[in-house]
Amino acid sequence: MKIIRGIKEMRELSRKAHEEKKRVGLVPTMGALHKGHLSLIQRARKENDAVFVSVFVNPIQFGPKEDYRRYPRNLKADARLCGQAGADAIFFPDERSMYSSGHGTHVCVEGLSDILCGKLRPGHFKGVTTVVAKLFNIVDPDTAYFGQKDAQQAVIVKKMAGELNMPVTIKVLPTVREKDGLAMSSRNAYLNDRERSDAAVLFQALTLAKDLLKRRFNDTSLIVRKMKELINSKRSVKIQYVCVVDPRSLRPLHKITGKALVMLAVKIGGVRLIDNIMVNRNA
Amino acid sequence: MKIIRGIKEMRELSRKAHEEKKRVGLVPTMGALHKGHLSLIQRARKENDAVFVSVFVNPIQFGPKEDYRRYPRNLKADARLCGQAGADAIFFPDERSMYSSGHGTHVCVEGLSDILCGKLRPGHFKGVTTVVAKLFNIVDPDTAYFGQKDAQQAVIVKKMAGELNMPVTIKVLPTVREKDGLAMSSRNAYLNDRERSDAAVLFQALTLAKDLLKRRFNDTSLIVRKMKELINSKRSVKIQYVCVVDPRSLRPLHKITGKALVMLAVKIGGVRLIDNIMVNRNA
Repeated sequence: MKIIRGIKEMRELSRKAHEEKKRVGLVPTMGALHKGHLSLIQRARKENDAVFVSVFVNPIQFGPKEDYRRYPRNLKADARLCGQAGADAIFFPDERSMYSSGHGTHVCVEGLSDILCGKLRPGHFKGVTTVVAKLFNIVDPDTAYFGQKDAQQAVIVKKMAGELNMPVTIKVLPTVREKDGLAMSSRNAYLNDRERSDAAVLFQALTLAKDLLKRRFNDTSLIVRKMKELINSKRSVKIQYVCVVDPRSLRPLHKITGKALVMLAVKIGGVRLIDNIMVNRNA
Repeated sequence: MKIIRGIKEMRELSRKAHEEKKRVGLVPTMGALHKGHLSLIQRARKENDAVFVSVFVNPIQFGPKEDYRRYPRNLKADARLCGQAGADAIFFPDERSMYSSGHGTHVCVEGLSDILCGKLRPGHFKGVTTVVAKLFNIVDPDTAYFGQKDAQQAVIVKKMAGELNMPVTIKVLPTVREKDGLAMSSRNAYLNDRERSDAAVLFQALTLAKDLLKRRFNDTSLIVRKMKELINSKRSVKIQYVCVVDPRSLRPLHKITGKALVMLAVKIGGVRLIDNIMVNRNA
């Protein structure tokens, strides 16, 4: 697997691909790749002639008390997985080349970035949109691939790309889950056995929401209450939020009348996990 | 002169130019073109194979009490001037296509955007960097041309392009002046005869700063005091700021030891005018 560390080199490689009329796909990641990432890379492989995976643990999207330092890093394993999934190269820039001292430029998506996860992680999405804008400018992909697990991120990145007229198509692919339903996440590795077992309640709660809707309960306060009761049955799990929102605006819904996004964020031990599912009353 | 109103059409035209290996130059303007703009277009013509001039009075860079509505608009005259200066096409999008309802994405250059003109015009530079980012994404120029008259804007746009890794070179060209030294500006048209005559004091004050430095006075508080005295001799002119700053950080200098930017902003009648010159103690 080719590892590209230089911004210029990455830019040059992509420019050459475009000159050869190749379609360029980008999968932006923070490394610690799991099956969720691999499904993005595999899809990118199917749809493009050149596939790049960026691996960059982006410091500016972590809060001062968050897990930037201990975030899992394993380039060797990532490179092997990228190779298996069909990537052409990994873009692996270092922090200094991405953020020079005195860096002051940010991209912000107002309205969507300060609610839900953004409320609990001030500055997080500003860090995400800034690094994604930089990666798009460096790699110049025709299509970039994101996971539905990070639903708010996906909505924000789509809005950013559209509103800044970025010449890229954003594709959001389904969450990949463990056997017990837990959404794949690099942070699952932090969980001990007990916590890992309790974590299955997250998908159970999302499934409960879907079942309630199927049984024609569309009052979101009832759905959220039932979900919270279920989650609270696991003592290691602390709810940050559980809500049902409009899939585009992410604003809370009182009733589910069409498509809706059921979202949750919890802490298990010290580990923050998020998950969501799309539901549809008319489906 | 070809007038392109659609974003897609503009994007397509530029894409085609790139495919034909043409160098693409962009001159972003708000129209009401004067000789300052024309010097940018002429330079773009010399250095590129395809030259686009954007004409867009960007609403989000005007404050609520500013001159957005009365800002001069004259596409017909602009088109003629663009033709004479050698542009290939004008990109003239409408407001709705540039900002959909609920627009929330902005590019901010922190540190530089809230001082000097940014302090007097809150949100102004955020509006500028956002629209410039959009124009760059739509037109995809190899080189974009800005005027030194808007010195703070030039520094901010350069920083944005660098820090977001935009694949564009920013060129900043010298201020073009009237015979009496007044910097060309679309807003000069607002001045009545008396105000227009008084406005010559701005360049006189900048020239005074240069002369003082030549005579080895490098204490900026003295230079600024002398400049203010001169400007205040014209009763129609109200100073907003006069300062000597570092050309890159725009932070105030106590002494001029090398290159420095002498900047001023005034109001004459209701009209806000800015100007600046670069000085160099070692020149």
